[in-house]
Amino acid sequence: MDKPLKYAVFGAGSWATAIVKMLSENLEEVGWYMRSVYTKEHILKEYHNPSYLSSVEFKVDQLKLSNDINEMATYADVLIFVIPSAFMHSELEKLTVDITGKIVVSAVKGIIPESGLLVGEHFHDIYNIPFENIAVIAGPCHAEEVALERLSYLTISCADANKAKAIAKNLSSDYIKTKISDDIIGTEYAVMLKNIYAIAAGIAHGLGYGDNFQSVLMSNAIREMKRFIKKMHKMKRNINNSAYLGDLLVTGYSVFSRNRMFGNMIGKGYTVKSAMMEMNMVAEGYYATKSAHLLNEKNKKKTRLPIINAVYDILYDGKDAKKVFKKLTEKLD
Amino acid sequence: MDKPLKYAVFGAGSWATAIVKMLSENLEEVGWYMRSVYTKEHILKEYHNPSYLSSVEFKVDQLKLSNDINEMATYADVLIFVIPSAFMHSELEKLTVDITGKIVVSAVKGIIPESGLLVGEHFHDIYNIPFENIAVIAGPCHAEEVALERLSYLTISCADANKAKAIAKNLSSDYIKTKISDDIIGTEYAVMLKNIYAIAAGIAHGLGYGDNFQSVLMSNAIREMKRFIKKMHKMKRNINNSAYLGDLLVTGYSVFSRNRMFGNMIGKGYTVKSAMMEMNMVAEGYYATKSAHLLNEKNKKKTRLPIINAVYDILYDGKDAKKVFKKLTEKLD
Repeated sequence: MDKPLKYAVFGAGSWATAIVKMLSENLEEVGWYMRSVYTKEHILKEYHNPSYLSSVEFKVDQLKLSNDINEMATYADVLIFVIPSAFMHSELEKLTVDITGKIVVSAVKGIIPESGLLVGEHFHDIYNIPFENIAVIAGPCHAEEVALERLSYLTISCADANKAKAIAKNLSSDYIKTKISDDIIGTEYAVMLKNIYAIAAGIAHGLGYGDNFQSVLMSNAIREMKRFIKKMHKMKRNINNSAYLGDLLVTGYSVFSRNRMFGNMIGKGYTVKSAMMEMNMVAEGYYATKSAHLLNEKNKKKTRLPIINAVYDILYDGKDAKKVFKKLTEKLD
Repeated sequence: MDKPLKYAVFGAGSWATAIVKMLSENLEEVGWYMRSVYTKEHILKEYHNPSYLSSVEFKVDQLKLSNDINEMATYADVLIFVIPSAFMHSELEKLTVDITGKIVVSAVKGIIPESGLLVGEHFHDIYNIPFENIAVIAGPCHAEEVALERLSYLTISCADANKAKAIAKNLSSDYIKTKISDDIIGTEYAVMLKNIYAIAAGIAHGLGYGDNFQSVLMSNAIREMKRFIKKMHKMKRNINNSAYLGDLLVTGYSVFSRNRMFGNMIGKGYTVKSAMMEMNMVAEGYYATKSAHLLNEKNKKKTRLPIINAVYDILYDGKDAKKVFKKLTEKLD
């Protein structure tokens, strides 16, 4: 590793934009792939992303922008994917160059619906990337607060601690503190599950449950998350670390979380379809709910997942949110 | 226990009023002691507490009101104390009747400043109440939501499971779910410590830290709480249960928490004295901070308590909140 590694971010949503900002604090050049020609042109002309975190001004000389995923995958040594999980498959279909030798970093929040795999697993299984070259960036971190340069903490997980450290270093700054972890699978599941719990928190709020119940829900959620992750990948981890509990809290308590907002609409009586249409997007937690439910169904000995199952029953079985939550309250403590 | 036990609540703040309401759902008669003659007369005439949860209407026939602590202590078999810890000592000084044979329940949030003891320990040491006759009521529970009959969960801790169950039963209703625990010391410490963390959350907010940091703070707080309680009383407990984590969250995330509000003023630059005067009351966490700090100082091998120590340095050593928190951020992860 004599020459400094080149980094590129794939995606142009708020979290992608925040990661480009973080990298810009440290690197001479940051690659940035986005689908939209308009977004690219806008950034070149106006120095900010037109749609997300538009208060963040970039030095465009520092950016290597491209609408060609293959050009960017060729350019960079470290590929950071920050594309909503629902669009990962269609984006990756465009990828024709060989990325076997690259370091792949996932900042995607969820499971790839088409393969039912975590993003790390997906790159390992489909692209033959060895696990020591796969990393995950986990919060707790609202992109909006990165834009404001408010102190935030990230956890970078990778089986290879040196790679985790190198990536962490390039994301660190006055307002970003990082730590590393070797629990890549656990942090990916945590990132995915928290969105389900945020939907649950939203449903509860929409149904009229208050702050006392919300805290009980979160207290049960972190215990449920611990059971789920332990079943999927048993190793020593402290579920109360920021990457797990912190990330759950920042999402579950955020009124800006799209997942919580989606849940809130369901709780208020919207159908799943109308809530999606109203939001004009699909909350990551919607897919995560199905994936988590199916993963557990596959197990011979199922894990007790009262919250995930309740959300599943409402979103996928068309059950009445009020009734399902009434039952759920009996299962919490 | 042939005759049903008589219950009395001591105190007339919001939490006391909420507990009287809960008991009124189950008992034919509820004893209620309060210092203020005015409050008592107001309840008799207007059916509600004039100062707290005044939307809650009581059936006065069901209440046995008194301004005489000895009369009430003689009347009741189960004495539920819900007096701010700072006033416990002066209230208890009025107590001249023997309460050795009573069941004493603490819903006090904090340590008695004069003795430096948890309320349970205080009754055990000073009033010779055996531990199996001492219980603790823990949240997570904002009194205001009890008034609104929003679903809330309580944990009743007692060394004697049957007594815990009996008390729990009398507090339960459509909107109150209860569980029991044998970790009386742990839940008392949790109730006390959460107020310190709520002050810390307030200070952070006042200093301009955002939601990302708040979630990291809470994630570190629950780990710190676990270390503290384990050191004070080692036993098997799940720190993520509602009585510990849930209670921390409902307080730490509440903009109505007086402790958080107090911290917020400190963070915004008020001196400790002016914040107290402005609030016209003393936040429980103020005393708890000193007690927790001193308890740890007494230990030969001190527990790592970066958050409690930071709050202590600000409140008692007059250190600059901004500088102390800057240092604190380096110790969190």
